[in-house]
Amino acid sequence: MRNLTMMTDLYQLTMMYGYYKHNMSDNLAVFDLFFRKPERFSAYAVMAGTESVIEYINNLHFDDEDISYLRSLDLFDEQFLSALKRLRFTGELYAMKEGTVVFANEPLIRVKAPIIQAQLIETALLNIINHQTLIATKASRVTYAAGKDIVLEFGLRRAHGPDAGIYGARAAVIGGCKATSNVMTGQMFGIDVKGTHAHSWVMSFPDELSAFRAYAEVFPDSCLLLVDTYDTLRSGVPNAIKVFDELKAKGFRPVGIRLDSGDLAYLSKKARYMLNEAGHYDAKIFASSDLDEYVIRELKAQGACIDVWGVGTKLITADGHSSLGGVYKLAAEESGGSLIPKMKLSDKRIKTTLPGYKKVFRFYDKDGMAIADLIALEGEVFNGSEPLKLYHPEEPYKTMTIVDFSVRELLEPVFIGGKQVYRSPDIMEIHNYAQEELATIWEETKRLLNPQEYKVDLSDKLYDLKKQLTKQYTGGV
Amino acid sequence: MRNLTMMTDLYQLTMMYGYYKHNMSDNLAVFDLFFRKPERFSAYAVMAGTESVIEYINNLHFDDEDISYLRSLDLFDEQFLSALKRLRFTGELYAMKEGTVVFANEPLIRVKAPIIQAQLIETALLNIINHQTLIATKASRVTYAAGKDIVLEFGLRRAHGPDAGIYGARAAVIGGCKATSNVMTGQMFGIDVKGTHAHSWVMSFPDELSAFRAYAEVFPDSCLLLVDTYDTLRSGVPNAIKVFDELKAKGFRPVGIRLDSGDLAYLSKKARYMLNEAGHYDAKIFASSDLDEYVIRELKAQGACIDVWGVGTKLITADGHSSLGGVYKLAAEESGGSLIPKMKLSDKRIKTTLPGYKKVFRFYDKDGMAIADLIALEGEVFNGSEPLKLYHPEEPYKTMTIVDFSVRELLEPVFIGGKQVYRSPDIMEIHNYAQEELATIWEETKRLLNPQEYKVDLSDKLYDLKKQLTKQYTGGV
Repeated sequence: MRNLTMMTDLYQLTMMYGYYKHNMSDNLAVFDLFFRKPERFSAYAVMAGTESVIEYINNLHFDDEDISYLRSLDLFDEQFLSALKRLRFTGELYAMKEGTVVFANEPLIRVKAPIIQAQLIETALLNIINHQTLIATKASRVTYAAGKDIVLEFGLRRAHGPDAGIYGARAAVIGGCKATSNVMTGQMFGIDVKGTHAHSWVMSFPDELSAFRAYAEVFPDSCLLLVDTYDTLRSGVPNAIKVFDELKAKGFRPVGIRLDSGDLAYLSKKARYMLNEAGHYDAKIFASSDLDEYVIRELKAQGACIDVWGVGTKLITADGHSSLGGVYKLAAEESGGSLIPKMKLSDKRIKTTLPGYKKVFRFYDKDGMAIADLIALEGEVFNGSEPLKLYHPEEPYKTMTIVDFSVRELLEPVFIGGKQVYRSPDIMEIHNYAQEELATIWEETKRLLNPQEYKVDLSDKLYDLKKQLTKQYTGGV
Repeated sequence: MRNLTMMTDLYQLTMMYGYYKHNMSDNLAVFDLFFRKPERFSAYAVMAGTESVIEYINNLHFDDEDISYLRSLDLFDEQFLSALKRLRFTGELYAMKEGTVVFANEPLIRVKAPIIQAQLIETALLNIINHQTLIATKASRVTYAAGKDIVLEFGLRRAHGPDAGIYGARAAVIGGCKATSNVMTGQMFGIDVKGTHAHSWVMSFPDELSAFRAYAEVFPDSCLLLVDTYDTLRSGVPNAIKVFDELKAKGFRPVGIRLDSGDLAYLSKKARYMLNEAGHYDAKIFASSDLDEYVIRELKAQGACIDVWGVGTKLITADGHSSLGGVYKLAAEESGGSLIPKMKLSDKRIKTTLPGYKKVFRFYDKDGMAIADLIALEGEVFNGSEPLKLYHPEEPYKTMTIVDFSVRELLEPVFIGGKQVYRSPDIMEIHNYAQEELATIWEETKRLLNPQEYKVDLSDKLYDLKKQLTKQYTGGV
């Protein structure tokens, strides 16, 4: 297991040292990990990364060579370095389950731990959740555009390094992809792997037909041929049809063809026609080439005959939305034995944080559709037994009263007292759970452009606490 | 050392199996790794990733559990699996040195190896070079905008997973950053690490002034204070000045303040004035908050008083340019004992590949400025002893004759006969080398928007080979 303890920002260590020198390092602190409204991206996100967080926390410790390195920085005293050497995570961590549909401002992870620990893990938690949630969200959009068609993740070569490829592919499957080209992801997580051949295979033979025949000979029952090395419609598809005829004659059922360049709407329609004319009605057409949710929408709108979409670069990099922008903010801190709510003010209302030790509730109507979420304080209960009045979080004069609703709490215990109390389900269970989650969200909220905002309200108690702290902090100025 | 052998696309393995079954797996093949014109991004790139490639190749082998997994896919026979178990890299690999300024269509890496090996390593090579070169290039743009100011890499929390943070920070230093916040990158590569405190530090104390004093007490000789937790100009800067006065009285020299929100032009000018009024002329102003090369240019144009730029999200994700788009294409393959040039045709001229076993030359004028690059075939010599006529690669009627030039070959041997023959220099040597490289490139080519294209020509021999193969491949149609 990889030890990522040193994967942190130096300022976490300088702050930890500061707390240590001021005898504050054991003060309990509550931090929330959340994202602010993702501009021009998506009205929701699909949570991913909890499993990596678990692995990271379980392995949190400084090795001897880490301590030596930190000593060499000439910033810390020996006593502190000894404390680091002993440091393990002893706190509590609640998180949304992977695959949960989540919204801006909701704590995706809530940490309560001695501040020295809670501060150390900030960077890694953000790194993991920002990345994986971004890719799962992008994948949910791409697969939403593809409708009932299958989407495969093909982006390893364009991912930002090995982890971005490996964990990105897993996140893509959480978001909706069915399989990946990435063999290591397949091995690590039990995800289906897919792939056939590249242009170089075709170029390695004297001509395209020999290349196709050679491939069909080795993989007669999983024969998918890439048809665009020289000329898709005049050479590629006719050669593929010849080989499919030969395979059929031997009793095999060819899988289909793959298009990787050119105008995919035009070529797929022409290729479908040619395949059908030759009697290969069930040969599928796979397409790849710079796809994303918008291109897929357009191609489908134009009647492209594509059955399986291989999506690479723009999915694995979440092209156009390079970051989820998740942050990790102090919400409460122990002082004199009790937990004091904390809030960061900001000129920008959206950057003011939510104070206190909080929970997230989701309300469903009687058809099982999600109506709204509510961020509330510890101890608050909402059980649907009486009507509930919700306020728009930024425009509180807008209200909505809900009745006859069912309720679910979204944060689940993952670590209690430093011990792992949650085990991740199998990856395809998470995939299915995410599909169920997405089915509870109105189409309007899933729209790819200009989606309808989902309602995330604050409980009266939380709203009042926020007002009270604003007054308290600004009272002196 | 991490074993990334399984980090490949499944189609590499199915092709390898195909070559194996057709007794072609030992055929030598030449592959070039290059990028096509990066649209609307940069007229050049800064090579990075060679060191990671070396580590990957040196550790290339399938472990027993890898073989078991591959067996479970039910695609390959036992003989092939045994061959995989024995597989090591025995070929040749040439690469551009990290920090070299490189251009579209030039082989950044040239592999000559048995095709089964050359094919296997495609995905990892692309993953590594696409990522690290992208970030080094982005960093060179950001530091170009910052001029003589120092740029620090602060992006770990927004990077696409651990590797994107760790190796991205290293690439950022190659491209021009002086240090990183990422402790693990510092430890692994001997890069300076920087960082002080976050808003949570300020929020952990009863008030901002106590928080600043507490920090100054622990770090009296490296005191940098974040001043925007509550109100930058009315609270943050005045409190910082108080603490700096106290530090000065004790004989310490405060480092300065950091601004992380608000209008950085306005706030930095006001803060500079306040610091100067208080006699803290040498206190530096650090700024962070969604910076990139364009924002830095604008802020500097407006006279922002910022000395050090902390650049996070948009650098570590190369925001707006999510991928370099590098590809790896077959250029030649052994047949009947000799190396036959290969070329992929395409409807799009830009997607037609360059055939043959190639070299890259760079020509310099007598002031040491780079004039043009030339992609040529093995055995071609250009030594500046006679005038050289260059052709525009896409518009060959445009020519230029150069005289009195000096020449440098850009591809360096890294592996010969499977043995590593190149050792990466120290990271700050690479950083300095990249600075020297960038100094040989005209300002017009480094311009952030609408840069002038740099000339990359093909030798007459290569141009003729391309024409001849085009004729040969399309002759029958």
